[in-house]
Amino acid sequence: MSKVVFYYFDIKGRGEACRLLLAYGGQQFEDRRITAEQWPTFKLKTPFGQLPILEIDGKQYAQSLAISRYLGRKYGLVGDTPEDALEIDQNVDLFIELCLKGGQIMYERDAARKESLYAEAVKNVFPDYLERLNSIINKNNGHLALGKLTWGDFVFAGLFDYFIKVLRMPDLEKKYPAFQKVVDNVYSIPKVKSYSDSTNY
Amino acid sequence: MSKVVFYYFDIKGRGEACRLLLAYGGQQFEDRRITAEQWPTFKLKTPFGQLPILEIDGKQYAQSLAISRYLGRKYGLVGDTPEDALEIDQNVDLFIELCLKGGQIMYERDAARKESLYAEAVKNVFPDYLERLNSIINKNNGHLALGKLTWGDFVFAGLFDYFIKVLRMPDLEKKYPAFQKVVDNVYSIPKVKSYSDSTNY
Repeated sequence: MSKVVFYYFDIKGRGEACRLLLAYGGQQFEDRRITAEQWPTFKLKTPFGQLPILEIDGKQYAQSLAISRYLGRKYGLVGDTPEDALEIDQNVDLFIELCLKGGQIMYERDAARKESLYAEAVKNVFPDYLERLNSIINKNNGHLALGKLTWGDFVFAGLFDYFIKVLRMPDLEKKYPAFQKVVDNVYSIPKVKSYSDSTNY
Repeated sequence: MSKVVFYYFDIKGRGEACRLLLAYGGQQFEDRRITAEQWPTFKLKTPFGQLPILEIDGKQYAQSLAISRYLGRKYGLVGDTPEDALEIDQNVDLFIELCLKGGQIMYERDAARKESLYAEAVKNVFPDYLERLNSIINKNNGHLALGKLTWGDFVFAGLFDYFIKVLRMPDLEKKYPAFQKVVDNVYSIPKVKSYSDSTNY
C-alpha cells in the first residue's frame, strides 16, 4: 500500500483497532481526525456516510471490522487456514454483539427506560456474554482466538474503553483479568506502543 | 469437509445464507432444524448459546456471517485479492447494519414506542441505507459487490424475507428492482434452486 489515509473522529471508538493495526504493520499513514464541525460536510463525500474510512491510493473503504480484517490479513494476523479465520471472525462477532447490545442501551434517550433496560441487561444479558468471552480468552492464553495474536485482539483492545463505558463496569478487569491481558498484549507491542504514546485523545 | 451438520431453527432467518452456500458448494450436509421445544436443552450444548452452528467433523462454529464468509472462501466466492474481500465485507456490513436497525424496532415490546421509532426510521434512517444499497447493487450488475456472484449475494438473498419484514415494505422490489435481482441471481443457480425447492419453511 503506497499512500494510505485513515479518517476517523478524534476518539478511539470504532477507529482505534484500524489505527493500531496500521501501526503494527509499520504502515506510514496520514491519521486524519475529523472534527464535529467538519463532519456534516465531510460526510457527503464518504462512501457510506460513515467513518472510519481507509483510503488506499485514493480508493476508499468503509466499515471498521471489514477494514480491521483486511489489515489483519495484510499483516499475517489471520492464522493459517480458513478454519482459523473463521474462529477469529466468530469470536470477534460475539464481542461486537455484546458491544452493540450495550451501545443500544447507552444511546437510549428516555432516561427511565435506559435504566430499566440496563438493569435487565446486567441481570439477563451481559453475564452470559462476559463469561463466554472470559472463557474464550483464558483458553487462548490472553488472546481472542487461536491462542496467539490475531487482528481480533486489536478489535478487542481498540474498543475496550468503549466496552467498559457501555457496560458501566470500570473495574471490569478486576473480575475478568483476562480482558486486560488482551489489551496489554496489544498495547505492549513496540510499534503499537510507540504509535499510541504519540497520540492524544 | 467430510461430515458436515448445519443446525438452525426451521426458518430462513440467520441460517439461510449458510444453507444456500452449502448447497452451492455441492456439500452434503445434515440440515438439522431445532424446534422450539428442543431449543432450551440444545442451547446448553452450543458454543455461544446461539444458532446457527456449522459442525465440521465434530468441531462446531457459530455466528452466521463468519460461517457465510468461510463457506464463501471455500467455494471461490471471495474475489481474487484482499481488497476484493474487503469490498464484499464492507457491503455486507452495510446491509447487516440496516437489518439490525430494523430488527431493533421490530423487537421493541412497547407498541406505541415501536410505532414512533418505526416512523422516525422510515423518515430518517431507512431511505439513506436503501439508496446506498440500491446504488451499490446497480453499479455491480445485480450483485452486492465486485460486479459478480460473491458470498455477499447469499447473505442478501438469505435474509431478504426478514429484510422486507423488518422494514415493513412488502413491495420493496417495486421501488428497488435491483434488490430482487440479487435474490433471483442466487436462487436461480441450479444447485441452490434444487436445494431450495426441496425444503419447506
